[in-house]
Amino acid sequence: MGSFQGHVLPGTVFLIIGIWWAGKFSLWHTTRRNKSFGSTRLASRTLQRRLEIIENCFFLFCSVTGMICEQYVANGPMLRLYDFAEKHWEQLHIWQHTTMYLFFFLAAVVSLILHTTKALPVALDKLMLGIAFFVEGFLFLYHLHGRTMLDVHVHQLLLYAIFGESLIFFLEVFHRDNIILDLLCCTLTLLQGSWFWEIGFVLYPSNGTVWDMKDHNTMMFITMCFSWHLAFAILVVGVVYGTVSCVVRSRLKRTPPMEMGLLKPRERDAESEDEIL
Amino acid sequence: MGSFQGHVLPGTVFLIIGIWWAGKFSLWHTTRRNKSFGSTRLASRTLQRRLEIIENCFFLFCSVTGMICEQYVANGPMLRLYDFAEKHWEQLHIWQHTTMYLFFFLAAVVSLILHTTKALPVALDKLMLGIAFFVEGFLFLYHLHGRTMLDVHVHQLLLYAIFGESLIFFLEVFHRDNIILDLLCCTLTLLQGSWFWEIGFVLYPSNGTVWDMKDHNTMMFITMCFSWHLAFAILVVGVVYGTVSCVVRSRLKRTPPMEMGLLKPRERDAESEDEIL
Amino acid sequence: MGSFQGHVLPGTVFLIIGIWWAGKFSLWHTTRRNKSFGSTRLASRTLQRRLEIIENCFFLFCSVTGMICEQYVANGPMLRLYDFAEKHWEQLHIWQHTTMYLFFFLAAVVSLILHTTKALPVALDKLMLGIAFFVEGFLFLYHLHGRTMLDVHVHQLLLYAIFGESLIFFLEVFHRDNIILDLLCCTLTLLQGSWFWEIGFVLYPSNGTVWDMKDHNTMMFITMCFSWHLAFAILVVGVVYGTVSCVVRSRLKRTPPMEMGLLKPRERDAESEDEIL
Amino acid sequence: MGSFQGHVLPGTVFLIIGIWWAGKFSLWHTTRRNKSFGSTRLASRTLQRRLEIIENCFFLFCSVTGMICEQYVANGPMLRLYDFAEKHWEQLHIWQHTTMYLFFFLAAVVSLILHTTKALPVALDKLMLGIAFFVEGFLFLYHLHGRTMLDVHVHQLLLYAIFGESLIFFLEVFHRDNIILDLLCCTLTLLQGSWFWEIGFVLYPSNGTVWDMKDHNTMMFITMCFSWHLAFAILVVGVVYGTVSCVVRSRLKRTPPMEMGLLKPRERDAESEDEIL
Repeated sequence: MGSFQGHVLPGTVFLIIGIWWAGKFSLWHTTRRNKSFGSTRLASRTLQRRLEIIENCFFLFCSVTGMICEQYVANGPMLRLYDFAEKHWEQLHIWQHTTMYLFFFLAAVVSLILHTTKALPVALDKLMLGIAFFVEGFLFLYHLHGRTMLDVHVHQLLLYAIFGESLIFFLEVFHRDNIILDLLCCTLTLLQGSWFWEIGFVLYPSNGTVWDMKDHNTMMFITMCFSWHLAFAILVVGVVYGTVSCVVRSRLKRTPPMEMGLLKPRERDAESEDEIL
Repeated sequence: MGSFQGHVLPGTVFLIIGIWWAGKFSLWHTTRRNKSFGSTRLASRTLQRRLEIIENCFFLFCSVTGMICEQYVANGPMLRLYDFAEKHWEQLHIWQHTTMYLFFFLAAVVSLILHTTKALPVALDKLMLGIAFFVEGFLFLYHLHGRTMLDVHVHQLLLYAIFGESLIFFLEVFHRDNIILDLLCCTLTLLQGSWFWEIGFVLYPSNGTVWDMKDHNTMMFITMCFSWHLAFAILVVGVVYGTVSCVVRSRLKRTPPMEMGLLKPRERDAESEDEIL
Repeated sequence: MGSFQGHVLPGTVFLIIGIWWAGKFSLWHTTRRNKSFGSTRLASRTLQRRLEIIENCFFLFCSVTGMICEQYVANGPMLRLYDFAEKHWEQLHIWQHTTMYLFFFLAAVVSLILHTTKALPVALDKLMLGIAFFVEGFLFLYHLHGRTMLDVHVHQLLLYAIFGESLIFFLEVFHRDNIILDLLCCTLTLLQGSWFWEIGFVLYPSNGTVWDMKDHNTMMFITMCFSWHLAFAILVVGVVYGTVSCVVRSRLKRTPPMEMGLLKPRERDAESEDEIL
Repeated sequence: MGSFQGHVLPGTVFLIIGIWWAGKFSLWHTTRRNKSFGSTRLASRTLQRRLEIIENCFFLFCSVTGMICEQYVANGPMLRLYDFAEKHWEQLHIWQHTTMYLFFFLAAVVSLILHTTKALPVALDKLMLGIAFFVEGFLFLYHLHGRTMLDVHVHQLLLYAIFGESLIFFLEVFHRDNIILDLLCCTLTLLQGSWFWEIGFVLYPSNGTVWDMKDHNTMMFITMCFSWHLAFAILVVGVVYGTVSCVVRSRLKRTPPMEMGLLKPRERDAESEDEIL
């Protein structure tokens, strides 16, 4: 992955997933708050299950493609691990990426089984995603030996996002469907995505000007930059949440007034529940 | 911020916020415990909402002013980040302060939207404050390279207060309106405020006597001093809580005796609830 | 333990315990979900208690045997701690193993008392196992002084599994009978077991080819290898869970159709509970 | 405190407190489980409150005495902090001990107010004890600069017990009256107490034989020794719990058989509650 494209590609994937999740979780949360329309709600549950299945099929496809591409495209290791002739390991960084994909593959498989057969305990999908992100961070952690200071620093900052997300997923095992955790999780996914882009720009600058890898000021700037990415991610999630929330409300308003009359008091109840001192 | 005033100013702000929060939370908690007067309680909820809005407008104003002042007052960077002529970063520490203000600004905006429109999930304000304090600590953490031992040490101690407060706010996402967490949060805010003053006095002593920056005994004294500040903060929160609690009780006593008769048994119930073995 | 057998033996024990626990927890969880047959359920509770007692008797036996073997077999220290004649400690690593066995012995005793007399608070067995694994990790942590880089690294990786398992057990004190935690716990036990085998193969290679103890690539490979062991452990737990789950379901189907009629709606209720948005 | 007596004294105090707490918590827990005798139960609640008040008066007395003794006995600093004549800090370690006592003093005051007036939120006493232990550990942490390896190591091991106990108290804020946490807390207090004795024996050996301060084997032995102290503490708590539990049961049996008849089914209910799969 030691190239600009190698960082921009996963960055883009994480950005798309982040926005997708932000939309999904906002939609579930907003419809749950306005759950008085029996039919709408039932529909949305079937929809939710169907969406989860589609999403996980997509993840499955991506991770399998990823594993195959890493191994076979260009001069990959083609599933060989050790070159006995020259006595050295075959492109370990590619094997590491394959391992990362493997855990996301496992998470997608478990999630698919969970949402289709219901034989598995709920929240297992969250646990598997937590493990997948943990392994990603774990491999990055022991990945950085002998690089320049700035290189190590940008990857260490990435670890905040990765381990943070892993932690959030573990917390979700106990606090399922907590919208705060869901949104925080989207934020960290977006942060990870945009930070991958940043790493690409910093380590492989396109305009030829090389960054000073040992200047302490550059490191301070990079640290601050990470905060800006976080602010940006929060903003994006906020905008997505606001949009989805508005759309759902406006669609609820277009329903016949009679039902609105039935809705009103209940809605007030549901909200006043949140308001209790 | 490398000056006495630069440390005393945020210190004073945090001290004021700490005392304000201590009063606010004590008031909510005490009125909640004596919640039998239907009218009083309803009034206090409206009051609570109004106070939250005023408070967050104030935070909004402060953080915007802070950002503008940092950038434009004296010889600030005026939104320039990199001096391409001389190839160096423009006053990064001021940009860092601006970033800190930015997150408190975001927290205030979210909190305002939350308390006015109710479109956002509750407890999101706590999360945003948790993130704001985390970013503050995060920037301080990578801020200390190449300073003297004592300078690093006083700032590291500050990090205990900042990260501690961040953690408390994250916990509040799950345990909302837990008075213990609220009071702990006020204590840490006060600790942060008074410790900023201490840093000012230690690093920029007014009476001319410079502290020995490398003496181990001085470091041990500073560590102990931090504990004293904590004890002081606990004391202040205790006094505020006691005062508010007394005032609320005395006001309840002045209400007509008939209502008192109705109150008594309920009050006993509410308190005996806490007493269950 | 500095030998191939010394690592393979505990590895095998942990592998067996891991698979046993995976089966046990899967069985409890699956029967709990289908708890409509009054009789089956009652039987399974008595069975559960009996199984716990048998399991802990086995642990008791193993830990006592372990302690005695370590002390007396071959040229063990035979309960002498310090050789006053030659002024050196008697085989401290064997004493350390004895200490580890001691804590598992304590855990087994507490668990036995808990399941036979019911005089102890529930979840105390989880706490004791948490402490036992913590002590195991704690002793390993201060065990690694002055070894080669690779040796330290493989043992450090082992600590992830041990401390992780300890943490899971502590969490179970608060979230008893959470199937997710139970399965995670089995996974980490299996990981520990298979990693002991890996350590044996790495440090005492059977085919004579010695690993390069200082090559950074070897370390990266070992780290990745740990992830594969984790994936393998997840797979094994998944297979066990699936098998047990299928067997229980097929046995439920063979019960008279009349009862099936009674079961259906209740089962749907129990599952729809998990489904609530 | 740099003397044998200086370590043995706090050690003894912690041992006494540990046993006292073990007895207290066992008593509350056992009576709570057998809560059917209305009168006994009410009596025990009044008793509980009275005991808490006596306990905290004792703590108050101890901490005040401790502060005064540290400052004035022998050649203490007598409340002077800095010797301006010779420009050095006055016996900082004694000031540190005074600070530790101060926080236990604060905890005792808060607990007294809590149990007499009921104006404070419940669980505040746990928080204050958590803070007191945290400050104790915090001061020890920055106390160890420039000592020999073994000296640092024995104090670091002590920190496990201190910070562990602090963490348990913080957890108790959220899980009040959890007997598991209570017993763990007693265990760690006992561990702290007996480890203070161990430190006394290791650093100031009475029989003249000085320990080798730099031998790695000695360090390994000390680490293992800490585990043994933990096992010993668990054993003591176990014995106390067992004794109290037996005494309470035997006293319950001596009550008139008529009440026993009333008790039985309820007791079974209460216990079966714990048994639910």
